[in-house]
Amino acid sequence: MSSLPPIADIDLRRATLCQILHWLASGRVQPSRLAAVYLDAIDRINPRLNAYVGLSPALMLEQAQGAERRRRGGVIGRLDGVPIALKDNFDIAGWATRSGLPGPGRSAEHDAHVVGRLRASGAVLIGKTNMDEGALGAVTNNPHFGPTHNPHRHGYTAGGSSGGAAAAVAAGLAVAAIGSDSLGSIRIPASYCGVFALKPTQGEISARGMTPAARRLDTVGLLARGVDDLTVLLQVLAGYDAEDPRSRHRRVALSPPDWEPGKLRCGVLPNLPVLGVQQDVLDVFEAALAKLNGELGERRIVDFEDWHFPRSRRAGFLLMEAEMLGTFAAQLADTEHPVSPQFHRLLDYATRKTAADYAEADRVLDAAALKMRRLFAQIDVLVTPTTPQGAFPLDGPVPDTQGDLTSFANLAGCPAVSIPMGTLPNGLPIGMQLVGARGSDLRLLELAAVWSATLDAAPEYPVGCDDL
Amino acid sequence: MSSLPPIADIDLRRATLCQILHWLASGRVQPSRLAAVYLDAIDRINPRLNAYVGLSPALMLEQAQGAERRRRGGVIGRLDGVPIALKDNFDIAGWATRSGLPGPGRSAEHDAHVVGRLRASGAVLIGKTNMDEGALGAVTNNPHFGPTHNPHRHGYTAGGSSGGAAAAVAAGLAVAAIGSDSLGSIRIPASYCGVFALKPTQGEISARGMTPAARRLDTVGLLARGVDDLTVLLQVLAGYDAEDPRSRHRRVALSPPDWEPGKLRCGVLPNLPVLGVQQDVLDVFEAALAKLNGELGERRIVDFEDWHFPRSRRAGFLLMEAEMLGTFAAQLADTEHPVSPQFHRLLDYATRKTAADYAEADRVLDAAALKMRRLFAQIDVLVTPTTPQGAFPLDGPVPDTQGDLTSFANLAGCPAVSIPMGTLPNGLPIGMQLVGARGSDLRLLELAAVWSATLDAAPEYPVGCDDL
Repeated sequence: MSSLPPIADIDLRRATLCQILHWLASGRVQPSRLAAVYLDAIDRINPRLNAYVGLSPALMLEQAQGAERRRRGGVIGRLDGVPIALKDNFDIAGWATRSGLPGPGRSAEHDAHVVGRLRASGAVLIGKTNMDEGALGAVTNNPHFGPTHNPHRHGYTAGGSSGGAAAAVAAGLAVAAIGSDSLGSIRIPASYCGVFALKPTQGEISARGMTPAARRLDTVGLLARGVDDLTVLLQVLAGYDAEDPRSRHRRVALSPPDWEPGKLRCGVLPNLPVLGVQQDVLDVFEAALAKLNGELGERRIVDFEDWHFPRSRRAGFLLMEAEMLGTFAAQLADTEHPVSPQFHRLLDYATRKTAADYAEADRVLDAAALKMRRLFAQIDVLVTPTTPQGAFPLDGPVPDTQGDLTSFANLAGCPAVSIPMGTLPNGLPIGMQLVGARGSDLRLLELAAVWSATLDAAPEYPVGCDDL
Repeated sequence: MSSLPPIADIDLRRATLCQILHWLASGRVQPSRLAAVYLDAIDRINPRLNAYVGLSPALMLEQAQGAERRRRGGVIGRLDGVPIALKDNFDIAGWATRSGLPGPGRSAEHDAHVVGRLRASGAVLIGKTNMDEGALGAVTNNPHFGPTHNPHRHGYTAGGSSGGAAAAVAAGLAVAAIGSDSLGSIRIPASYCGVFALKPTQGEISARGMTPAARRLDTVGLLARGVDDLTVLLQVLAGYDAEDPRSRHRRVALSPPDWEPGKLRCGVLPNLPVLGVQQDVLDVFEAALAKLNGELGERRIVDFEDWHFPRSRRAGFLLMEAEMLGTFAAQLADTEHPVSPQFHRLLDYATRKTAADYAEADRVLDAAALKMRRLFAQIDVLVTPTTPQGAFPLDGPVPDTQGDLTSFANLAGCPAVSIPMGTLPNGLPIGMQLVGARGSDLRLLELAAVWSATLDAAPEYPVGCDDL
């Protein structure tokens, strides 16, 4: 046991995963205390934040005690004793997977692949986080489970569809969280909540046991309070899974030649206001680029004139909606627990679309994949704001551009990282996105670590949370 | 120049590509003579065989003379001077690509990727071969271009949709041919015509400039008179193409561990008659397996009970039909050159299918891919007859099981080879199929070479052809 003073509760809740691993390894904190601190905070804060929609404190404490026993025996898993949250579209054996839909949900028979990996590494599963209904949206104002609030401002959206997961991490109610990202669902809430996110190369982390949205676009996503935390989580979770048809033998380790330090080719878009990026976001972005000036290498203007954002947005949504008609067939037919009229309306759109429309949308995605391949022959990293806007009031209008800057990474299967880049005039955080070629995940995370250190823009812990 | 006697015309036409490369390298034959011999044979035999639907003798001779000049200068490409045929769904710059549809077709601006590779290796392009209308079928009884006849029996199908290509190779009107295979289109005609075929791992040869049928299933296919010829062609044509969204960095070179000689795990299906395999085909297959006994290693019975052939057949066709509504939109609207009522009927089926139906079919393909992954964790190679039946009369009924034994390799993206395995009681040839895990192409070809040598079942040159 250490003779240093114990770590304060609040420090345990705002520390990064890497810091906590260090404290656990050096014996300055024990898994059961960590679990108790997080449970206590959830108890106090979650009722108004509404980040979690499923909790099992007894199970959580039991897992923590198991980790503690292993520690005494000298056996320490990579994440032994670390409390981690899961979005409610991942199967945990014996729990209901509800995916934001009403009704009792489906009791999962097996753990999702990532849940199995987390368990094997000793992580302590906290519970299930709130999300948009069926993951179809980016606001987490769920008609059945209520809205998740932004930890930095009550009444504002946390983003979505992994809004509960991002809010839990930002508010210190989880050390890290696992969500999903099909068009930006992990990066949008990371941008609004001021945390770090990784959407890995498609196929790098198995999506088995994650409720499908659009299989071609779906990826497991990671949320944490530090960029290095994402690397640790990726190492624990990535790898081939023969039971996921889109899983691939590791591409990351076989990544293309390293970027030459000092000769980075950094792509920027010339026309962000045309793409709907708001002026306040643009100002923060420009200031961040100015601060990074020495680390950007050669800046290349990237032509996205032929991109047709609304068209590829529509194509991605059609794939999701058409697949969801099958995935959620039982829930759509359940009159006792009706889905929302809004969800019905979105999927109704797909019922009027033909097989040929689907094929055409799939072709649009092929074109997007080619566009990105050509782009990454010219540049090493593409840098944009993560979202065209910051968090907005939950009772106001929802912009339709939320995913326009994130979705092309899904269309092309590329990895993308979101890091906090500064604060908007209204005091809310906003993220910067780094997109790389397929398989460049680790290089991208390395770059994100350097840039994050320079920007130093991760928001302060939202102390207001504790008064909620 | 060699002092050995010249090679007889008929020997040039029945030799394998490897034999011809040897004769060319040793100077026993010159490219221009080779071209003249093949052109003369095409002139005499094609009018009744109807393997070619587009020829340009002047261009062919010009290419052969170019190869001859390079040879005098000591520069020899891998296929320098070898006459090769192309199915009419590959773009050759300046030629019309008709894909078996009526009308003037679309004049191609660029060479297909494989055409560029062939040119770069010095191959002599002969012309375009006949196929099913839109590649949707396996008979090559084309309503606009007429039927291609089986070189072994006039009035019988050559199979399809690459029927013209297979017939040209079998009849000695091309040294090798490039076709396409989305559900079996290269292997079915190879089986019926008694030649060798390879459908490579999906993404291994770029499909850019090949008219899409169903992009998820489409592969470039290879036809030749010898199994080693397929290896040579694969080496010339395979490799990453950034402009094909499904092209992958070479998987073949990164193939899983070699199979251990003498410990081959060979999968066989227990219930071939239930799958529609005819008794005469079964007899030839059993006799071939008996002959191969010492080389089969450990035989494992493979359970395909849950395969649902009609269901996956239907899923594959829906993808093709839905995509073709887009691919052939112009031709479907061209009342001056109407497509056949049969083609209209097939695509009309897809117009009644919804986007959700397409998503469901795509999910069936995912299940097929998983099934094959699991299978190839148990076995090294799956061996079946290539087709449930031999060639049938062009004026008789068309069985609906033609592609049932070939299509699962497409559904799963696996490589598959067809080799002649014997002769049916009616004197017509029939093929044996070897299917391997993704990326095992070269090992599969090696095995096919050993087995072919043991079986020694490649049919005699169909001399009747010359009397056609």
